[in-house]
Amino acid sequence: MKRFATEISPLVLDDAGDLTQPWGESEATSAIAYGTQDAYYSPAAIKFFQTMFEFERLDWFQSSAAGTEHPMIQATGKKAQVFTGSHEQSDAIAEWVLWAGLDFFQRGPERRVAQSAQKWARLLFREISSTHWLILGFGGIGQACGTRLRALGAHVTGVRRRAGASDAADRVVKPQDIPALLPQADAVVLSLPLSEATENMADAAFFARMSKGSLLINVGRGGLVDETALLAALDKSAPKAAYLDVVSQEPLPTEHPIWRHPSIVLTAHISALTESAKVRTDSVFIENLACFLKGGQLRNLVPAEVFS
Amino acid sequence: MKRFATEISPLVLDDAGDLTQPWGESEATSAIAYGTQDAYYSPAAIKFFQTMFEFERLDWFQSSAAGTEHPMIQATGKKAQVFTGSHEQSDAIAEWVLWAGLDFFQRGPERRVAQSAQKWARLLFREISSTHWLILGFGGIGQACGTRLRALGAHVTGVRRRAGASDAADRVVKPQDIPALLPQADAVVLSLPLSEATENMADAAFFARMSKGSLLINVGRGGLVDETALLAALDKSAPKAAYLDVVSQEPLPTEHPIWRHPSIVLTAHISALTESAKVRTDSVFIENLACFLKGGQLRNLVPAEVFS
Repeated sequence: MKRFATEISPLVLDDAGDLTQPWGESEATSAIAYGTQDAYYSPAAIKFFQTMFEFERLDWFQSSAAGTEHPMIQATGKKAQVFTGSHEQSDAIAEWVLWAGLDFFQRGPERRVAQSAQKWARLLFREISSTHWLILGFGGIGQACGTRLRALGAHVTGVRRRAGASDAADRVVKPQDIPALLPQADAVVLSLPLSEATENMADAAFFARMSKGSLLINVGRGGLVDETALLAALDKSAPKAAYLDVVSQEPLPTEHPIWRHPSIVLTAHISALTESAKVRTDSVFIENLACFLKGGQLRNLVPAEVFS
Repeated sequence: MKRFATEISPLVLDDAGDLTQPWGESEATSAIAYGTQDAYYSPAAIKFFQTMFEFERLDWFQSSAAGTEHPMIQATGKKAQVFTGSHEQSDAIAEWVLWAGLDFFQRGPERRVAQSAQKWARLLFREISSTHWLILGFGGIGQACGTRLRALGAHVTGVRRRAGASDAADRVVKPQDIPALLPQADAVVLSLPLSEATENMADAAFFARMSKGSLLINVGRGGLVDETALLAALDKSAPKAAYLDVVSQEPLPTEHPIWRHPSIVLTAHISALTESAKVRTDSVFIENLACFLKGGQLRNLVPAEVFS
């Protein structure tokens, strides 16, 4: 950031909600804001957005995330002249997906039960190289998953609206093919944005087509899954297990049955939460900032109609 | 097997210890045996070896494993005119190693504690792409690990006696470099055979050079590790955790402290136990059988001096 010391005057919000101007005040000719990953989950998140909404105008907003459906981000997108996103979390999320897949196919939960019972259990497992994956939403995250899975020898089918081959998949198909492909998948990954078209897409009919013993992974948004239907489907072993990083209510209320379901592994929306992802995301902001100051074209522009 | 129906007359031992000749008796001109993975862990394993030792002679023994240090295998190697091994378990073991690495760097144990406490814990994790691995023993297993780790962006140093570059590693070094490299490794994998030279190689001095917060993985043999020293080292967080598929006593006695140590994840010598590995191993036997019948050269010959 220091390389911009003569050009910008940052206003920094800390977790306690205190605003400081570490480089001193200056006359601003434009107003820009960077929504870091930390900012979105800070105790001062509301103040972050409030402060920004009080700006007379907002020339550019850089988000650390790819998602745009959150009401605060929608409001920010409406206010900002230019809105840019970030896909630098994809690599972190793909590693989370691999962890989930290996843990499921290697029977991680059963291994842990055996160890805590001091039971020398020779549990046969399935190599990920013999599994078929259906990845719903084949943007940055889906492709990052596909690339790694293929490197491990797994078979990958990506699903996206736009057709065309990809090195990250054995084949790329269209959303209308999903019902026909679900029964063949050993693992189904939800890695798409939440929209009216995708809300509750994983419902009772969807699970009825999944095969017995299969795996559901959700790294998209909780709203993609009809959670009542999921709990009922797990009791019929189709899917056999769900590894979820997102749920419809976050934080998930203590009494929610998802916490304790024996076939669900849940993490707290942290699949993108790595130091490396923060460094990559900051790099996108720094690069874009250099372009912004020179009047050039920014990376990861989000079209205005997304916020209309 | 049916393709050999006119040439061989199999003698099959089942788990109950019953011997059958499903294709009928015939006059044998040579005696061969195939020690499948199932045979070694069958309740009838002792009978398998006893039966074979009673053969007048043993022209060829095909093992499903790479290891040769077990007393039964040593005795078999002495009896057999020709002994061939198998490296088809490497891919399975490498998947086990990836599972261990991802679970450790993603703080799997803490995630599970949080879920069982219904705690929405935003646990930052480390991408495997930012980690440095030191793989001790860079044969089939070590290279299978290295290939996968590099595909995920990790940095890999392989250690073996024979020098020379490998696509499975960023660099290949010699055993004398181990002490200097241990402090730089985020993860250390033991994937070497047990011998007088390697027994207890991971001792107090070894652990004293490992860095705080690092990971030890053992998929070689339990005897490679001084387990008393390991338990003491874990209490000092160097290494921070050990993922073990092998221990010095197998099955591990119920009262052994390894079972309950909070920093140890233990599985029951199952890292090679996959259907795919069995199929691949059977294929090696079938190929070798075809060569044997034609009088050709067998794959994976183990030199006689290994059994002297």
